[in-house]
Amino acid sequence: MSLPSVAQALSLIAERIVPGPAEAVPLGAALGRVLREDVIADADEPPFAKSAMDGYAIADGDASPSFRLVGGAEPGRLPGIRVEPGTCVRILTGAPLPEGAGRVVVQEAAEVGGGRVRFRSLDGPSHVRPRGQDYRRGDRLLDAGTRLNAAALGILATAGAAAPRVAVRPRVAHLATGNELADPAAVPGPGQIRDSNSVLVAGLVAGTGAALVLQKRLGDDPSLIFAETAAAAEASDFLLISGGAGGGDHDHAREALERAGFAVHLAGVNVRPGRPLLFATRGEGESFRAAFALPGNPLSHHVTFQLFVRRALEVRMGARPAGETVPGFLDAVLPGMGNPRETYWPCAWRSEGGRFCVRPLDWTSSNHLASLREANGYLRIEAASALHEGDIVPVFLWPA
Amino acid sequence: MSLPSVAQALSLIAERIVPGPAEAVPLGAALGRVLREDVIADADEPPFAKSAMDGYAIADGDASPSFRLVGGAEPGRLPGIRVEPGTCVRILTGAPLPEGAGRVVVQEAAEVGGGRVRFRSLDGPSHVRPRGQDYRRGDRLLDAGTRLNAAALGILATAGAAAPRVAVRPRVAHLATGNELADPAAVPGPGQIRDSNSVLVAGLVAGTGAALVLQKRLGDDPSLIFAETAAAAEASDFLLISGGAGGGDHDHAREALERAGFAVHLAGVNVRPGRPLLFATRGEGESFRAAFALPGNPLSHHVTFQLFVRRALEVRMGARPAGETVPGFLDAVLPGMGNPRETYWPCAWRSEGGRFCVRPLDWTSSNHLASLREANGYLRIEAASALHEGDIVPVFLWPA
Repeated sequence: MSLPSVAQALSLIAERIVPGPAEAVPLGAALGRVLREDVIADADEPPFAKSAMDGYAIADGDASPSFRLVGGAEPGRLPGIRVEPGTCVRILTGAPLPEGAGRVVVQEAAEVGGGRVRFRSLDGPSHVRPRGQDYRRGDRLLDAGTRLNAAALGILATAGAAAPRVAVRPRVAHLATGNELADPAAVPGPGQIRDSNSVLVAGLVAGTGAALVLQKRLGDDPSLIFAETAAAAEASDFLLISGGAGGGDHDHAREALERAGFAVHLAGVNVRPGRPLLFATRGEGESFRAAFALPGNPLSHHVTFQLFVRRALEVRMGARPAGETVPGFLDAVLPGMGNPRETYWPCAWRSEGGRFCVRPLDWTSSNHLASLREANGYLRIEAASALHEGDIVPVFLWPA
Repeated sequence: MSLPSVAQALSLIAERIVPGPAEAVPLGAALGRVLREDVIADADEPPFAKSAMDGYAIADGDASPSFRLVGGAEPGRLPGIRVEPGTCVRILTGAPLPEGAGRVVVQEAAEVGGGRVRFRSLDGPSHVRPRGQDYRRGDRLLDAGTRLNAAALGILATAGAAAPRVAVRPRVAHLATGNELADPAAVPGPGQIRDSNSVLVAGLVAGTGAALVLQKRLGDDPSLIFAETAAAAEASDFLLISGGAGGGDHDHAREALERAGFAVHLAGVNVRPGRPLLFATRGEGESFRAAFALPGNPLSHHVTFQLFVRRALEVRMGARPAGETVPGFLDAVLPGMGNPRETYWPCAWRSEGGRFCVRPLDWTSSNHLASLREANGYLRIEAASALHEGDIVPVFLWPA
């Protein structure tokens, strides 16, 4: 039986995930959250014509030899004064332009005395920012599905969207299984390895904007795994199980999920590393739950999380995909080509004179997490294909 | 008097910033923190030869017609059994290889019966991950200055670096000044604008790994600004003042900083937008403080933060620069070239068939924050230069 491809698995996951709810949050809590509404400008920006410099506002085209100073304009209030030909108003950067004024002459060009101002030159730009220069009332500023970065928060503030509707953060529970796992702080016993998956998953979950609400390290005792799986599914929207994804003697994830009421939709993907991935769901509406069992090797973890779990969380949150696949030039020879599985090879990209160049990193196995030391993406090698130096290849860029 | 260039300003800032202290934190709290020590492998990885598959371990080169099954090997403990020619051991993925074994035959190729195992084929890979395949004890795994992402946390866990030394998070205080500022939730009064800088700065600070400990919105009253500046400098390591950076009638930042004991090292940079930037420091050692006054327009804020404040925080934390400048092809004509200031123009980059292409976005002024809606970088235009379509241009990529 042939396994589904990465693309097929992603389609299946996207179909099965039920989009989650939205909530309004204050701007100060919205960084990294996923916008769930289109944001429309409620006013022109700037909302009034204003000065871009400190100087003197005069009527447009007024070339009087000198100007009578009739008042001042400051940021934060309407000037309440009108500029007529032959008169000027002292104006500060950001202040609304007085009625009748059409330009600002910078203060460096002014000579002031006896209530009058002379300008050494009236040439140059107007130094006026017209009302609506940046955008107009009714313009669409941000689309639903945008992940809110600092600039987007500023745009929302300008538009008065002080409590934007964003996706509720999915609650993620993580169970790391395996008798071989030792605490990272411990010296591993004979045959043991330190558990790197727990901090790896915690870091990856944090980067998606979801909330890790529960994380436990378990052994291989089936009854414990079954009980903890059932409990974790109650306490979370997304359940991640590390290890036990395959069909071996100590692989209990599938049975644990089925006992907890999940239907398994995916059991294996034609991907390297990460083949034994499981994906399952249960329930509908508010009681919907999704679960993944991630193959226990740490690089399999990273790849399957970045490809599949992240996308599932994005669909849940209504977010546009953060991980992008772009074409780049392969700048090295790769060993071991022709693998029947679609392969994600750790890589580092850079621009070399405007060429998007991709360097595959040393990579030995699905255990080889240290291969990600300098990585910022995965080079994708299609199933059963070979690559040559200089080929244009797809690169999966890790999301920010 | 000519203003310092961006490069000169960055050098001056790097010279004046006193590197801050380090602290050991648990791995669970280390995401996004800056590593302050080189991390060296304390053991080979994998720490023992292990099986990459579920199957049967046999001696290397043993082509016996059938094998006597002498025991089992599981993850998490030493098998305590030896494989001799003509014998085999049942082994699970991740289990240590028994002494005497050199390869694993996958279970799919096995026929088991009567305490003996026959293999349909003995061809294929060894399915053994040798001890030290990924790295050796004493290898350098991560360098001081690395910002810890999820993969780096996993590498630290594997290496037993469960409490890495990282930079103490700088405490940042932010004061937004200006009578014109209204709360984002309010309908601005006549002549007022909504304060977008506060959420913008909060978001940018969060992205650097520093901690925003104080944020206030003030008017233009000098005595209040002086008092709040002095108080904020006591409560923080980095003080950011929005607005009032220039030399105008309402520009009180410089005087406020000097009254609070700061020495101003930079008053203006030849950059567009953001020219009136102020940089100041006071004290030494533990009482060292740094301060910036950022020009009040929101795009000036974003540019000066990404270029200067971020770099100052990185120097303080001992971090390698996160914002990278790479060459790209300009794929459009830009208006208004030849500006005497080095210009940072909002842009979006993408790879087009392996070409790193840069699209300048619509940009009107230092007020135009909405120009960043689709931006992921700034196109750098050298002072007094012109660009043409197809030119190779430097692109400042925003840090993740």
